[in-house]
This record gives sequence, C-alpha cells and structure tokens, in this order.
Amino acid sequence: MRKILLIALVAVLASCTASQSDPKGNHPCLLLTKEGVKNIKAAKGKMPMLDVSLERLAQDAQAAMDRETCVPVPKDGGGGYTHETHKLNYYDLHVLGMSWQLSGDKKYVEKAKEIFLAYCEMYPTIGMHPIEMSPVRGMLFWQTLNESVWLVHVAMAYDCLKDQFTQDERDQIENKLLRPIAKFIMEGTPANVETFNKMHNHGTWATAAVGMAGIAMDDEELYKKALYGSDMTGENGGFVMQLDNLFSPDGYFTEGAYYHRYAIWPFVAFAQCIDHHSPELGIFAYRDSVILRSVNTLAQETYCGEFMHFNDALEKGFSAQELIYAIDIAYNADRSNKMLLTIADTYQHRVMISDAGYWVAKGLSDGEAQPIKYSSVLLKDGPEGKDGAVAIIRSEDGNSALTMKATSHGLSHGHYDKLTFAYYDAGLEIVSDYGASRFLNIEQKNKGHYTKENKTYAGQTVAHNTLVADRTSHYNGDIKISSEHSPRIAACSMDNQAFQYVSAVDSTAYDGIRMQRWLAWVELPFLQFPLIVDLLKAESSQAHEYDFPLHYNGHMVHLSVPYKRATQTMSALGDKMGYQHLWVEAEADCAEGTTTYSWLSGYRMYSFSQATTANTKFRILRSGASDPNFNLRSEPSIMFSEKCSGDRLFASCLETHGKYDLQVEQAANLTPSCVSVEVVKDDAHTLQVDYHFVDGQVLSVRVERSTSKMTINY
Amino acid sequence: MRKILLIALVAVLASCTASQSDPKGNHPCLLLTKEGVKNIKAAKGKMPMLDVSLERLAQDAQAAMDRETCVPVPKDGGGGYTHETHKLNYYDLHVLGMSWQLSGDKKYVEKAKEIFLAYCEMYPTIGMHPIEMSPVRGMLFWQTLNESVWLVHVAMAYDCLKDQFTQDERDQIENKLLRPIAKFIMEGTPANVETFNKMHNHGTWATAAVGMAGIAMDDEELYKKALYGSDMTGENGGFVMQLDNLFSPDGYFTEGAYYHRYAIWPFVAFAQCIDHHSPELGIFAYRDSVILRSVNTLAQETYCGEFMHFNDALEKGFSAQELIYAIDIAYNADRSNKMLLTIADTYQHRVMISDAGYWVAKGLSDGEAQPIKYSSVLLKDGPEGKDGAVAIIRSEDGNSALTMKATSHGLSHGHYDKLTFAYYDAGLEIVSDYGASRFLNIEQKNKGHYTKENKTYAGQTVAHNTLVADRTSHYNGDIKISSEHSPRIAACSMDNQAFQYVSAVDSTAYDGIRMQRWLAWVELPFLQFPLIVDLLKAESSQAHEYDFPLHYNGHMVHLSVPYKRATQTMSALGDKMGYQHLWVEAEADCAEGTTTYSWLSGYRMYSFSQATTANTKFRILRSGASDPNFNLRSEPSIMFSEKCSGDRLFASCLETHGKYDLQVEQAANLTPSCVSVEVVKDDAHTLQVDYHFVDGQVLSVRVERSTSKMTINY
Repeated sequence: MRKILLIALVAVLASCTASQSDPKGNHPCLLLTKEGVKNIKAAKGKMPMLDVSLERLAQDAQAAMDRETCVPVPKDGGGGYTHETHKLNYYDLHVLGMSWQLSGDKKYVEKAKEIFLAYCEMYPTIGMHPIEMSPVRGMLFWQTLNESVWLVHVAMAYDCLKDQFTQDERDQIENKLLRPIAKFIMEGTPANVETFNKMHNHGTWATAAVGMAGIAMDDEELYKKALYGSDMTGENGGFVMQLDNLFSPDGYFTEGAYYHRYAIWPFVAFAQCIDHHSPELGIFAYRDSVILRSVNTLAQETYCGEFMHFNDALEKGFSAQELIYAIDIAYNADRSNKMLLTIADTYQHRVMISDAGYWVAKGLSDGEAQPIKYSSVLLKDGPEGKDGAVAIIRSEDGNSALTMKATSHGLSHGHYDKLTFAYYDAGLEIVSDYGASRFLNIEQKNKGHYTKENKTYAGQTVAHNTLVADRTSHYNGDIKISSEHSPRIAACSMDNQAFQYVSAVDSTAYDGIRMQRWLAWVELPFLQFPLIVDLLKAESSQAHEYDFPLHYNGHMVHLSVPYKRATQTMSALGDKMGYQHLWVEAEADCAEGTTTYSWLSGYRMYSFSQATTANTKFRILRSGASDPNFNLRSEPSIMFSEKCSGDRLFASCLETHGKYDLQVEQAANLTPSCVSVEVVKDDAHTLQVDYHFVDGQVLSVRVERSTSKMTINY
Repeated sequence: MRKILLIALVAVLASCTASQSDPKGNHPCLLLTKEGVKNIKAAKGKMPMLDVSLERLAQDAQAAMDRETCVPVPKDGGGGYTHETHKLNYYDLHVLGMSWQLSGDKKYVEKAKEIFLAYCEMYPTIGMHPIEMSPVRGMLFWQTLNESVWLVHVAMAYDCLKDQFTQDERDQIENKLLRPIAKFIMEGTPANVETFNKMHNHGTWATAAVGMAGIAMDDEELYKKALYGSDMTGENGGFVMQLDNLFSPDGYFTEGAYYHRYAIWPFVAFAQCIDHHSPELGIFAYRDSVILRSVNTLAQETYCGEFMHFNDALEKGFSAQELIYAIDIAYNADRSNKMLLTIADTYQHRVMISDAGYWVAKGLSDGEAQPIKYSSVLLKDGPEGKDGAVAIIRSEDGNSALTMKATSHGLSHGHYDKLTFAYYDAGLEIVSDYGASRFLNIEQKNKGHYTKENKTYAGQTVAHNTLVADRTSHYNGDIKISSEHSPRIAACSMDNQAFQYVSAVDSTAYDGIRMQRWLAWVELPFLQFPLIVDLLKAESSQAHEYDFPLHYNGHMVHLSVPYKRATQTMSALGDKMGYQHLWVEAEADCAEGTTTYSWLSGYRMYSFSQATTANTKFRILRSGASDPNFNLRSEPSIMFSEKCSGDRLFASCLETHGKYDLQVEQAANLTPSCVSVEVVKDDAHTLQVDYHFVDGQVLSVRVERSTSKMTINY
C-alpha cells in the first residue's frame, strides 16, 4: 500500500514539477501564501488570538529594525555570541518578511536586504566552523543541524521578500547564499550527505530546509531531492522515506516526546509547504495521515501541557514554538480536530502568522474549540509497530497518568530504561524520570551541550524506575546491542476505566534474566484515589543482586522500618553505571513483610509499599555525587536491594492519599491505607498478590502466566 | 492622644453596654448581620464573586450535612483524628449557621443542633487534653490557642442559629459549652489567664473568642473583659491594649508577615463585630486606624501574592483564609481603598459570606477595582516604632524586591538574623530565607509542630544572609538577650526610584563587634536590571573569623575561582549553631580581587560578586546534614569565610542578567557585566567601593561614615 502511494506520489510530482517551471508572481507560497496574507489582513481586529499574534509580530519587527545589522564570522558554540546572533538573524529575517507582506512597508524590505547582502559578503569567505565538536560540523554553526534550521527560516523570509529584490540582488542571494547553503546541507561533506539521506530527525531538518529553499528559489531539483533523497529515487532517502520510517504506525517517534517535538517541526512545516505547492499530492493523507496522527500522539504524551519524560528530555510542552507550528498546521490540515483549538487557546496563546494560524484564530474566534480528549493509549514503537511500546493509562479527568516505557532504544537520545514507569498526579510528576542532564544554551555549562553526566547518570538504568541487576545497566550500557532489541508487550487492557493494565517482557537487557512487569491502575471503592499495582518478576537460573530504584518528587515523610541517616558524612553509592552519582542519605534493613515509604508532594501524600524480606536493604538516595561541575540536579530517590539466588517477584503498590491544605490548615488521611503486600502464589502458572487495607479489605491480584492476563478481586 | 481615645472608648462602651441589655432579635450580628443577609439574598446571580462564594458555601454545607456527627473525646495532636475532627466541626457549624440564614432551610438548624448538643454531652466530661506539649494546654485541643479559634467560629455559628433553638437548648449550649469554654480560655488555668491578658497574638485570639461569644450570648461582661482584660480596667490586658501594643505605628507586626497573617485574623474579625455591635466606637479609626494600616502593611510584605519570609514562616499569601477576612473587612471599613478589590480578585477568588464580603463582591461587580500599589517602604518595628525596621525596596513594576531585616527579635518566632537581606525577582525568591522547619498538620512529622531543626537550623544566623562571627549565632542564640536589643536604622532613602538605599547598625549581636550594612538599589543605564549593592562593615578591636553565607534558589552555573567538589564523600560544615546542618559540597580558595558566583533561576541568571582576599575561603553548601528525620529541605547556599585581625568591609553586588528562554531556545547575556569590586577607601570617615563593568564603566559608591549617607557616581 505504502509502495503504491509512493509511486503515485513520484508520478504526480513529476508532472507538477513540469507545470511549475515559471512560478514567478506566486510568492509567498510556503507557510504564508498570498491568500493567507489576504485573509489575515481582512481579519485584523476581529480575532483576538490573531491580534495578539500580530501585536507580537509588530514588537519583534520593531526589535529587528532597531538592531544593528550584524553578520559575524562564525566562532562560538551554542549560547555563544556568533551562534546566538545567527539565530537571531534568521528569526529577524522571517519576521521582516512577514511584516512586509502584511504591512507593505518597504522599510522591512530594506532592512532584510541589508542582512541578506551582509550574508552574501560574509558567507563565501568562510570555511568549516572552528568548533570541532559535532560529527556533522556546519559552517555558520558548529553543527549542520542549526544550518538547516537557519535555512528553513530564511527560505520563508526570502519567499516573502524576493519579489521586492532586483534580479541582481536575487542572483546574489540565491547564488552566494541560499543555494550554496542548501548544497552544503545536502552534500557539503560526507557526513552531510549521510545525514541528508538518513532516517533521523536531523535528516528531516535537512530535507525540509533544502526543499523549502527549493520552492522559494523556484528550484524544482532541490525540491525533488528533498522529497526523494540525493539520488531522487525515493529509495535511499528523502522526506517521503522519512515519513515511512521515522514514526511508528501509531505516530510514536522513537526518541520520545521531547525529540518528537523537535522532529515534528520540519515535518509539519515542509508538509504544509508541499501541500501549498502540490496540493494534489495529499501529503497530509500519506501513510494513513501519519503526520496528523503523529501530532495527536505527541499531544497524548503530555501531562498538564508538558511533555512526559522519555529518554533525553528537558522541560517543554505545548508552549514550545515547534508545537505552535504543529498544532496550527495539523488543524489547518484537518479542521474537524477541534481539540487542537483548545490546545492553542490554553497553552500557546498565539498562532503562527500563516495560513494555518489564521484558521486556528478563526476557529477560536468562532467558538469552535472542543475539550482536549486524553485517553489511555498503547503507542507502539518502530516503523512497523513491532518494537515495543509506551503505555499511558489515564484517569478520566486527566488529573493522573501512569506510564510504562518498553520501547526500542530510541537512537542516540535513548536511555537504558527497559520497563521503567512514571506516575503523574495533581499537576506534578510524582514518580519521576530524570530526563536529560543539559543546560541548553548555557555556555558556561559545557557550552550548552549535554553534560557528561547525561551519559554517566541520566541515561543509566539506575536513574530510572526499573530493575537493575548486579549494579550494571541494561545491555551493559552498550547502545549498539541495546539498539538491536526491544521488549515485547505481553498484555494490555485499557477498556475498563476502573481496571486497566499493561504488561511487557524483556529478556535481552541482561544475559540470562527474563524480566516481566505488570502495571495496573485499580480504582477501588474504599480508596480515595486509584491504586497503582506493580508486579515485576525477574527470572534467572543464577544468583543476582537486584536493585529496585524509585525516583520521586516531594519530601520524605515516613519509612515504616527504622533507618539510619547519614548525619556527619555521606558517601556515594558506587563507582560506576550511575551509582557513583547517588549519595546515600540513609540506610535501613527491611523485615519480612511489607516496607512502606511515604512522601509529600504538593497537597497529597504518596506511599510506595513493597513485599520485602529480611534480606532486603532499603536506601534513601539523592543525586549529585561524583559531579565535579555541578551538572546534576539534586533529586531524591529510594532503592530496595536484595541478593537473590533465583527468581524474585517484586510486588508493590503506589497509593495516593490524603489532603494537605496549607491555606485552610486542614489535613486528612495522611497515613496510607495499604497495610501489607502479600505474595500468595508465585509459580510457573500463576502469580497472586494480595493487598491488605486498614479496614480489612483485600485486593487480590492474579496473573495467569501463560497469557500474562491479570484479574482482580476485592 | 491614645490615652484619651482609650478613656473615650471606655465611657462610650459603658453607656452602650447598658443600652444593649436585651438584644434578642438582633441576631445575627457578628460578621454576618441581618442587613448583610438581606443584601446577599438580593444580590444572588448579580455578582460573580458572590455567586462563586455562595456555590462554595453550598458545597461545604452539603459536605457538612453528609458527614456523620462526630464529637470525639480529645486525644490527638495537630493533624491527628480528634484534632482534625474538632476543627472540621467548627467549620461545619459556621457553614450550617450561614446556610440557615441564607436559605431558611431548617435542615441546617437540625444538623447544627445535633452537633451542638453532642458537644454539650461530651464537653462537661473531659478534663485537660492528654497531650502535654504546650505550656498553654487546652481541653478540646492540645493548646488553648486552637480552643480560641474553635470558639470564634462557633460563636459565629451560634449567632446565626440561636433564635431557632428553644430556651432549653440555648441554656444547654450556653451553660454547658460556650460559657465554660469562654471561661476556660479566659481563666481556666494560670497559663490561660496570662495568655488572655498578654500582648501576643494568642492573646488576641483569646480576647476575640471570648468577646464574640459574649456578643453571641448577649453577655456583656464577657464582651467587656475581652475589650479591657480580666480586670476590665484596660490597663492590664484586653483587645484595646493589644491594639496599642501588637503593631508598630507603621502597622508592622513584630513576628513578621507569616504570623501577622495569623494575628490579623482575630483583630479584623473582632473589630468587625465591635463595629457592628458598637459602631459609635469607631474601632477602625482607633490609634490612627491601626487595624487598617496593618492590613495595608501586610499587603506590602508580599511578593507575587505570597508573604515574604521573616522569622518562622511557611508558604502562605493572600489566598490564606485569614487574608480573605482581612481584605474583605478592611475594604468594608474603608471603601475608598480600591486596591483591596484587586487583591480579592487576583489572589482570593472568593469573599466571606458576610456583610464585608458582600461589599467586596459589589465593588468588583461594579468595576471599581484599582491596581495594587506596591512601593518601597521602611516598616518600623516596636509599639513606638523604635525597635529597628524592615526595609522593602521595589522596582516600579513590582517585579523585583529587595528586603533588609533589622528588627527586634520577634518574640518566640524570631530568628537570629540581624541585618539579613533577601531578593525577589521575576516571580521567584532569588536570595532566599529558609523560613521555618515545620510540616504543619503532618502528624508523622513531629505531630505537625515545629521540628527541632527549626531551632537548630532555621532560626540560627548561618541559615540567613548576614554575617556570622566565630561560627556563633547572634546573641549566642539566647532569646532573652536578643529580645532586649534591636538594630538602629542609620539611613534610608527611597525617594529616587533609580537609587534607593537603607543602612542599619547592630552593635549588640556580638560582644565587641559593630556591624553596619548598606543595601542599595541602583538602576544603571548600562545594565539590564537593577544592581544590588551590598556593603557590610564589621568593626572590632579583636580578631574574628567571619562567615558570610548567601542562600539562593536555582542551579549553580559558574564560580570564578577553581573549586574542589566533594565527589565520593561529603561532610558537615560544623557541629553546632546550624553549621552541623550544612553539607560542604565544594571548597575553593579565593584570590586577591573579586570572586563571582553565578546561578540560574527561572529564566534569568544571578551573579553575586564580592571583593575577596587571598585569605578568603569559599564554600558551596547544601542543607540536610545532621538531620536524622529528614526534616530539612535540601537547599543550596554559598559562604565566604575569612579570619580577620580587625575591621573588615565586605563589599559585594548582586547582578541580575541574561535571558534563558527554553521555549524558543534563545539565550543572551549569560555572563555578568560586573568584572570587579574594588574597595578604594575604607577609613573612619569614608567608604568608597568601585564596581567595574565589562565595557569599562565604573559605578563608584561612597559612604560618609558620620551620617551613613550613601552617594553614587557613574
């Protein structure tokens, strides 16, 4: 099916290419078209969201006009002067281009021309960027990636302005600047050739940049190469092939939500340009509307408007500029998806100045917004959807969410975190994922790049909420091996809101260990909030030392067994695989029975209970050891540890309870209801764990091993 | 003048008491009066803020109706079952009383009666509360203070309901419950007698409770004792004398904003009742309108709606229930103060169901709100305004605030923090004050009381941003001695927005050391944000080891001198006076010159620069050592340390700079502009410190020692 679409696409495009030989007079035609300009001008003062956005454009334009034109010879890395100046320049050019189209004021053209011509003077004089940190080094920037982002913006600017430039100016700009940069991105170095044709989001930035520059310059060859790769066959690279490969059938992006955000930007931007340039291709319908599905999937990977943390991730969400593009363009492509209007209204507070942005502003102004619909989802990973999945289980009111990550490695931004979970509640990340160790654009912090602790801590297994064997990360921290395997989703049931669960199996993270985890969401009439049931079964014929870490946000309130706090001196937990980065704040010996740890987060209490033995060791930890440059955040975690001679079932639950209202000074239900976790059966056929509650109620959880199916009884 | 007012008050009141001998039929008459009920009923559906508040009342009433009546024999401390149940009961009774008045639905009367009569059965059977933690032990609660709060609410309830009860029921309720509790609060134990007549906010709770119960029961003797103390002379206690003593002429409450919030509640509540009961007294005008001035002063002690941290303090602000009373009642008493409407609208989102609340809702609905006016203020401490002051210097847009605390000790909630400062910017507390170590109402945490670390850390000098000599807290941590002394405000200039400063002197915190600090706010044309200039001069004829700690919120970015981070093990800084609670994360030796520490907080950078010597030691610290029960929050600080043989001028500045925008991935101005702090002159007549900036600019700060006056030149 996909193959057929591809062939059709090539055919249609060939004809369309021919018919577009003289498109002069059609500009602008990328994201903002002639019709968009007309619509926006006519809507002024009538659509609040558009007015706000135009006001912001006016401020940005004034700032751009006020700035002295400055096109420095590239020197600095991310956050440094020349890096930030070239970024500012591409934003400024884009802003000036749009402002000219909407105002007809020539001053914007003159200013933009000055910047363009300064680039035409500078660019031909430079070679490769002096900073040699990236395997895909750029010229204007330390990595070609930024060069692509530069060209995406500058192509939009040129598209808006070119008709105002003389033939000589256009020749200069195209021949000294835009085409050379496009060619550099496409084929300037072997690394660039590889990236341009790669199934990777950097590749999509490259194809989008080259393709949009192609449309802006009426250079159909560039456009075609962007669509079908350097060899124009569609078999070895290009945007269309990226659409086939970079998202799973569920629209999941393998690196996780944070990079999904970044990857989606060139996809939606270039797709919108393709749709304007060659609407007959129906690019948004391609591969069962994979672009639109992907935007919806990314929306499902948010909590309170912020992206959940999978793999390398910083704090971003719907308010990120990429998502403004994504939401506006997705709505423009499918105006029946009215929840996108609410996302724009609630989290973005502005629209793109573009055809798509106009329709969002109009939809909002016409009162068409519908509530955002969050639901429990299983998002399968891999181009064929066969490489594991992320599961997200939600409360009906969207106030709580439970996630399990059982995906493929996730390329270079992946973490060694098979079967890890997280829990979000009452607006906070309760059981947390560290995300990435990086101070983006802060030059004093490793020039704004990932810090080395990103590898030594953030990516390691112990930094996650899953099982570590023998103090070694999954796949021994080897990305090559990790990239070859994925967990298997063994069972998933999300139809009954009151009882949902997912189970995944991994048997490759450790040689000779099979791990299977069941995470269940159980709404019980006798509990205030849903109970999270967690069964993690490790099977091995050999003895292993297992660590079960749990990272949380909040303040320690209570541990059910006596503990010894480090008071005068404190030591690191270990010396490698992330253990070196954890301070041991306290240690305890568990008893045979149940060990419960409670913490306060926001206005609620959270208690994690696990069935422990007399051999279970418990630790309270904090990140920040072995961190000579203060790159790590100081965050708390706990860890259950045990040496096991064979199989081990880690049976636990997370209970949300209580109310702690400082404003009216009221507190209630501060002690957990779950009093014990009892493993009743743990054999080859059946697992049964009974959760006992304070008033005598029992929740009995049963798993049939052969099917991995879970049932509950209470 | 005050004396005259007092005599007038006694006279007027005597006559008024006589005229009120049979006030039956006048109830309700406390905060909600007959007229208020009429107004609120008529306004239904017409004033959004009132409707929201009525909706909330309806929900609370339904919850109260649904709850099984439960009046347990007192047993638990704060956060425990019986404690929280008796709290819930007083809220419920109040809610039921108001609901009856507004709905005329007898079901509310019946439910309230059930609760009242259950108390009439239980109360006569109990003795003192079993928990012996408070020097002023209660019966229903572990401390009498809670008993007073109970009675304030229950008096309001009874006032609303009494006309619906039979004579027998009234007799029971008054004779078995209300009057016994009022008498217990007033004279039940020697400690209660003392508290009732004390110049302390617990005393005000006691007088308000007794006075309001008196009005509700038409018992003028109780009312009179509440106003004039047990002996009814007005010379040895009572509400009027508390008005004379508990606020400074500037309306400052000596314990600081957090307890000001708590103290203001009974003041405004009882004052409103007095004004309804005896309007001819003009209680709100008393002592130059001290109650209203005090509400305004408290409003000035907020940042972004939250109270600044002075002494023991948790996170509270305008949204606290006490402030809803305070803002509503203050507006009702002076309806020309329209900024109070904005406070209600922005931070409270509801009004009291009372006469005062009605007028706030009406003002808002009539569109009368005016912007909140923040301004730089010097708030003098002490009944005569002679016990030092808190200085607050603000930006015109309210976005930044600098504080210096140079007050008296602040009673039992005071800290040893003479001349400490704090800085708030862009919505965050940048240079911070730890506040209190307490988990209010969390029973697992020392039963919800202050933890012992509140004394051992939070109150100690090293937990603040001021000078510590010889690792010893001010006054050697002795509250008796500390309470006898206050710093002196030596200079203050707040008229010129671009250059404001304050200076205070302390010569009693340490024997033989005179400390004087100048904090200045300087807006410079070549800096992005105001520069905070800090000169702290320590004079002594003897050698001392000085520590200069600075507590901040944010993440470490850069230190200008090489440092050694504790990586594998970490130790506590000391063994007493709070030093035992600080982990030493890193150490550095400063050079002769300037040492700069930069951190990131929110979207901006902050750099603290100090003129240092080759003998200056620098440390990066974190709270949490010697804390066996995890009572302390984990928070960062830095410390400059130096052994000095004689005088020492600590010359520093705090620079706010840069922009770190993760949403659009732009960063600018991340390195501080201040490159050196140079002490040019430091003698008996003059101090001169030159601040040098990156582009060659110099800010020269001069102090004339004889007048303490500061001038600047640049």
